[in-house]
Amino acid sequence: MRYLITFSYDGSNFSGYQKQNEKRTVQNEIENKLSKILNKETKISGSGRTDSKVHALNQKAHFDTSNKMPKEKIMYALNKLLERDIYIKNIETVEENFHARLSIKKKTYQYLINTKEYNVFQRNYVYQLNQNLNIEKMKDGALYLIGEHDFTSFSKTDLTKEDMIRTIYEVAFEEKENLTITITGNGFLRYMVRNIVGALIDIGLEKEKPIYIKELLNKKDRRFGSKTASPVGLYLKDVNY
Amino acid sequence: MRYLITFSYDGSNFSGYQKQNEKRTVQNEIENKLSKILNKETKISGSGRTDSKVHALNQKAHFDTSNKMPKEKIMYALNKLLERDIYIKNIETVEENFHARLSIKKKTYQYLINTKEYNVFQRNYVYQLNQNLNIEKMKDGALYLIGEHDFTSFSKTDLTKEDMIRTIYEVAFEEKENLTITITGNGFLRYMVRNIVGALIDIGLEKEKPIYIKELLNKKDRRFGSKTASPVGLYLKDVNY
Repeated sequence: MRYLITFSYDGSNFSGYQKQNEKRTVQNEIENKLSKILNKETKISGSGRTDSKVHALNQKAHFDTSNKMPKEKIMYALNKLLERDIYIKNIETVEENFHARLSIKKKTYQYLINTKEYNVFQRNYVYQLNQNLNIEKMKDGALYLIGEHDFTSFSKTDLTKEDMIRTIYEVAFEEKENLTITITGNGFLRYMVRNIVGALIDIGLEKEKPIYIKELLNKKDRRFGSKTASPVGLYLKDVNY
Repeated sequence: MRYLITFSYDGSNFSGYQKQNEKRTVQNEIENKLSKILNKETKISGSGRTDSKVHALNQKAHFDTSNKMPKEKIMYALNKLLERDIYIKNIETVEENFHARLSIKKKTYQYLINTKEYNVFQRNYVYQLNQNLNIEKMKDGALYLIGEHDFTSFSKTDLTKEDMIRTIYEVAFEEKENLTITITGNGFLRYMVRNIVGALIDIGLEKEKPIYIKELLNKKDRRFGSKTASPVGLYLKDVNY
């Protein structure tokens, strides 16, 4: 039987999602508890990694088991055993050819920015820019991101030889207590959302013009890009299959 | 010169507000940094203590100094030196007979409850009840709190011989993402807000009737009261002079 789990986590006290020896990661924690519950070493296969301090509202992972324990019971037991910074929201059965990473149709990330006064309660959850942004200009710049592009200029510096082409479907801006930037695409390179947000912030601060995004895309070179935005404002929001 | 500072703090990593040896407290942190900035050991006198893990949106404290440094510079230096879980929001000069505790006219606390699904991001900031509450019944119960009463039944168990009379001016309920209960009074006994909230939760869960509040007030005995509500949902919201 193959199961798909949906879970949220507060990334503050994790060295990211992906398994690493001797470090507290989300994958390690879930695999440890799941193996205990199912009485057999069990691996989970996630939709993708998230970096240290990055959060998830709806991360997804699949696992296989021959254990006949009802899925509601597995979910209950996981939430009992896991520490309070991971929470399993759903568990469902999926086809055997379903894969949490390979079956992805689109992914949505959300980035939160506080443009107002510093807020102690948000310091691990919302990027504390604490400066005004020209959001209309950011929206103009974001339009250049839509569609299929080579995102080398928005990737991690040492990332090479991979396929750097990704498609962005939507970049949405919402201003409430904080500024929320929501980005949907068919997939994302490492640091891609944070590097996009870094560039958009430079436009919002009027250090760069909206056309800067187009120029960066054309350069296909990360060295020309803006500072990578802090991980604390970033959330993996949804994974769609 | 006497100064009044207004500051917020995330209580999660503090052993409360009040100075204690060998422990990280809000008062210790501020006094250490202030003494460094003013180049002289300087004590602050707070509006009152908050317990471990309790937060403050607008805590107040006064201090005296003969140092001529402009107040804006003191505030800037404090925020530079303090860790990111305390933030000085304002500094103002006050009369020499002003006292951050003795001059109080009223104090407002706020308590946040999540009645919906567990939320990992709120675990240190909103009490995770994760059960429905009958808020109309809680409002009915809260009416009995208004006015001058002996709050012995809502105090810390080992608190005796003190004056247990306090006046509550208002108990307001607001339902948005979370349930917020805001309580204003002329002063509060230790654990009083958390014990009031504990009793209101028992009414909301329909374990008790609204009249329970009146019965508890009449008993003047903490042993009959409800469980003390978790500190994580509690915020000192305002202190008025």
